[in-house]
Amino acid sequence: MKVGFIGLGHMGGAIAMNLVKAGHDVTVWNRSPEKAAKLVAAGATLATSPANAAQGEVVMTMLADDKAEEAVVFGDDGILNAPALHVSQSTISVTLAERLTQAHKGCFISAPVFGRPAAAEAASLFVVAAGKPNLLEVAAPLLRNVGQRTFHLGETPSAANLMKLCGNFMVMSAINSMGEAMTLGEKGGIPPAAMLEILTESLFGAPVFKTYGEILVRARFQPAGFAAPLGLKDMTLASSAATTLETPMPFLSAIRNNLLTLIARHGPDIDWAGVALVTRENAGLTASPLKA
Amino acid sequence: MKVGFIGLGHMGGAIAMNLVKAGHDVTVWNRSPEKAAKLVAAGATLATSPANAAQGEVVMTMLADDKAEEAVVFGDDGILNAPALHVSQSTISVTLAERLTQAHKGCFISAPVFGRPAAAEAASLFVVAAGKPNLLEVAAPLLRNVGQRTFHLGETPSAANLMKLCGNFMVMSAINSMGEAMTLGEKGGIPPAAMLEILTESLFGAPVFKTYGEILVRARFQPAGFAAPLGLKDMTLASSAATTLETPMPFLSAIRNNLLTLIARHGPDIDWAGVALVTRENAGLTASPLKA
Amino acid sequence: MKVGFIGLGHMGGAIAMNLVKAGHDVTVWNRSPEKAAKLVAAGATLATSPANAAQGEVVMTMLADDKAEEAVVFGDDGILNAPALHVSQSTISVTLAERLTQAHKGCFISAPVFGRPAAAEAASLFVVAAGKPNLLEVAAPLLRNVGQRTFHLGETPSAANLMKLCGNFMVMSAINSMGEAMTLGEKGGIPPAAMLEILTESLFGAPVFKTYGEILVRARFQPAGFAAPLGLKDMTLASSAATTLETPMPFLSAIRNNLLTLIARHGPDIDWAGVALVTRENAGLTASPLKA
Amino acid sequence: MKVGFIGLGHMGGAIAMNLVKAGHDVTVWNRSPEKAAKLVAAGATLATSPANAAQGEVVMTMLADDKAEEAVVFGDDGILNAPALHVSQSTISVTLAERLTQAHKGCFISAPVFGRPAAAEAASLFVVAAGKPNLLEVAAPLLRNVGQRTFHLGETPSAANLMKLCGNFMVMSAINSMGEAMTLGEKGGIPPAAMLEILTESLFGAPVFKTYGEILVRARFQPAGFAAPLGLKDMTLASSAATTLETPMPFLSAIRNNLLTLIARHGPDIDWAGVALVTRENAGLTASPLKA
Repeated sequence: MKVGFIGLGHMGGAIAMNLVKAGHDVTVWNRSPEKAAKLVAAGATLATSPANAAQGEVVMTMLADDKAEEAVVFGDDGILNAPALHVSQSTISVTLAERLTQAHKGCFISAPVFGRPAAAEAASLFVVAAGKPNLLEVAAPLLRNVGQRTFHLGETPSAANLMKLCGNFMVMSAINSMGEAMTLGEKGGIPPAAMLEILTESLFGAPVFKTYGEILVRARFQPAGFAAPLGLKDMTLASSAATTLETPMPFLSAIRNNLLTLIARHGPDIDWAGVALVTRENAGLTASPLKA
Repeated sequence: MKVGFIGLGHMGGAIAMNLVKAGHDVTVWNRSPEKAAKLVAAGATLATSPANAAQGEVVMTMLADDKAEEAVVFGDDGILNAPALHVSQSTISVTLAERLTQAHKGCFISAPVFGRPAAAEAASLFVVAAGKPNLLEVAAPLLRNVGQRTFHLGETPSAANLMKLCGNFMVMSAINSMGEAMTLGEKGGIPPAAMLEILTESLFGAPVFKTYGEILVRARFQPAGFAAPLGLKDMTLASSAATTLETPMPFLSAIRNNLLTLIARHGPDIDWAGVALVTRENAGLTASPLKA
Repeated sequence: MKVGFIGLGHMGGAIAMNLVKAGHDVTVWNRSPEKAAKLVAAGATLATSPANAAQGEVVMTMLADDKAEEAVVFGDDGILNAPALHVSQSTISVTLAERLTQAHKGCFISAPVFGRPAAAEAASLFVVAAGKPNLLEVAAPLLRNVGQRTFHLGETPSAANLMKLCGNFMVMSAINSMGEAMTLGEKGGIPPAAMLEILTESLFGAPVFKTYGEILVRARFQPAGFAAPLGLKDMTLASSAATTLETPMPFLSAIRNNLLTLIARHGPDIDWAGVALVTRENAGLTASPLKA
Repeated sequence: MKVGFIGLGHMGGAIAMNLVKAGHDVTVWNRSPEKAAKLVAAGATLATSPANAAQGEVVMTMLADDKAEEAVVFGDDGILNAPALHVSQSTISVTLAERLTQAHKGCFISAPVFGRPAAAEAASLFVVAAGKPNLLEVAAPLLRNVGQRTFHLGETPSAANLMKLCGNFMVMSAINSMGEAMTLGEKGGIPPAAMLEILTESLFGAPVFKTYGEILVRARFQPAGFAAPLGLKDMTLASSAATTLETPMPFLSAIRNNLLTLIARHGPDIDWAGVALVTRENAGLTASPLKA
């Protein structure tokens, strides 16, 4: 399929590469063009503008935030009036997704993903797609090359964006609850690794607990796999949706406060799992849990 | 083995029955003796007092709270000076576990369990045991008849009690985070069942999310599988441990506040998973999520 | 002085009237012009556009939110390039205040106020003004006719806006803390009125406790003196500033969650002091506290 | 009047001295008798036991916690069966107050106080008394020598204890809200002293804001006027009452978490107003606010 791909960061770059490998005719664009080099070497075409990348059947976007997405769509040489179906994989606000749906006059679907960069490379992401059924069908072959499974979530694109925010909220909740439990346990004589084993071998045997539990036990918060400011951005988007939808969320509030503390105390170059570090510090623990 | 079993509620009754079925020589005691009938019919002996039930090698207790455990140990005809090794499976405070360790002069282990009554009947509980290695060995054959797996957690009995409280805190955290996410999603057009499927089929494929997620989607809070006041009791014990151990736990606070709201608004006969109901009501939702 | 006044709601209308009464040459503008009738009858001139109201020395704005302020400044016939000094009394975001400072090329001061409409009518508001000293001097005679006292808060206009948000946060904190204390007391047998008397006659003898305490004791949440959605708007602006400034604020989070619950359960036509009602309902109380 | 006084710490010692100065026949007792020296020098009699101090008309107690109060009442040579009316001024749990009411067979009133040691010395405390009217009358002349005003709060002694806990909760709420507002303001360029002036000169002109605001602005957390562990004790008693009375209190939760963090990070020798320090540190501020 003739497809454009805009946004070649850790996630977008890996996804675009999988599309190239799968044999699609891929045109790429990135604000800093040097990030396109590897893809061009692999067979992709470098576009001269976002609009130029959106002349095929589909144009996919994977950008850092609302502002970047807006620039690519509504900015100079943006994709707004280009012929391609816009498939947005960015983690953006529900409000922007609604605006894009209107602006694209329905020729738009949201298809955000769950998974870290390694999963993007392995094409094992989980994709949550929402939009009109015929448009979802157009995108389906591409999404199959991106992830291990695509969930369809109805006809309203923004629902997929809300689902993405809820999913990230669930991840942060799992991390933060482990942070509290492990800190309490550690101060009471339970080694974090022992607690993690009991949890994941009994009721909590899910990837989210295994992956992040390991990060917590080893205190591997740097370098960041997913940086705290990005986590804060997502939780702030969730908070904004919760305000609009009049939904009180005390856990979300606690998470946001811990992320703010994390960034204020440790700077931005730290993993969002560092909320567990905040809990340890607030409890007066300073050494790494493994040495405890 | 000659073993006594004290406390024949939903959990204790099922565990004692498994010990009888496994061929042990079981003597049982319960404050309301009628609960012993089924066990006696199956071959157990009815004790005349707690002390009378503690004349064999081991006496196990599975009682509702600190007060009940104290009565059985320190009360008239209590097991304090009986010859049997005391294996406490009750969910009691860390403080009481420490007191019991001292009072029993070391002849004490804690072995609380994870799992609902159905798991107790199926002998598929998870047991967390802590105490001196030689004592753990004595109890091992019994615990094998009680659960699918026994985790050993060092030599300090109270660590197992703290682990149990942390585990229940983790369960409540999982429930409460789903409650917030599902409510936000529902108000934004995502059916709770669709959200649950995406979560459990991707990063959250653990029993805790599947079991409780189903309860939330179906709003099956009555009859209570585990009643909210018992959940509150456990979270209050965790809070008490957190105070003693100087560990701030904002998630735990949010959970306790939601449990108090749940009980204040709906009375005590409701499942602890009803904290999700509190979130829905606070967001102005009244109908069942399935009808939404 | 020749002064324009834009925004003639409860607050703005009362302030503009005091300027007219004080003998200033006042030109007024409001999106719905019928709100200007009373002022025109009292001697004010009706402007044909915002820009038209900004041809004198000073133009003051008192608008509902960022959007309204932006429309009046940057919209068609906006005041952006008009000759008058812009004195903004609106409760707007720190971000917008910064943007206005730049857009007006320094010819801008912020002068938000504390007080309810009755205080606006009585010219007994408290004004917090920030901006260049020479500009504050220009506005001083006008602000003296508006409030009982003007506090100067340095040269950065947005600091006054942040102060306004902090002040409203402090008011909500006082209300919410009374709500929790009175509910606990009431359930424990202390009549709310008795608690209020003890508080305000000992350490808490400030207007904020007396005014809002009375509202809580009498459960006078309707009609709204200051509507919950406006309170939520302000607390959300504060939350936004807290995010930008990396400041965790658990009290602010709790307040926002209670306001969301209040609006979700009772609709928008309720006083922001109704957060205390949320606490009572969450504790299972339904009757009015006076009847309790 | 012939009166006994038990508990001669900072508060009790000062109160007892005022009783001596007022001409009462005072018998004193303290676990560490050396604290009685100053009082004996001033004319008080040293008792040989709590019971010995309770042979007059009234015996007053001002002790650190439930345990100390229980020891003095129910312990060896305790005052339980002594003839004197027991007037308890200690900040104890609602539960213990109820137990004392029963144990003393009604011959008991609660009369806790608001105020710091300096107010105790100046006899300017606020007293909240509850109990049978005829017993309150007996105690009235003594309480008049202790404080500037006595509030009567009905016939149930424990209501006064609950009021005391609610009052201390209100104080901590005032401190914590100022801590959040001042931190946000400081990070946004508002000097804490300027914010405090605006608050206390407008809506927040109460002693609680003036006294503690000054402590916050000057960061005078050591030496402790009222130590954080005592504040934590009171907030934990309030939390316990809230649990029994089924009242969710998010502000109280936030305060307790901040107190735990304060003690865990700074040790016990710090003022309870240090919760504001926790907020500053969580926001990444380290220097004193005055230097900021």
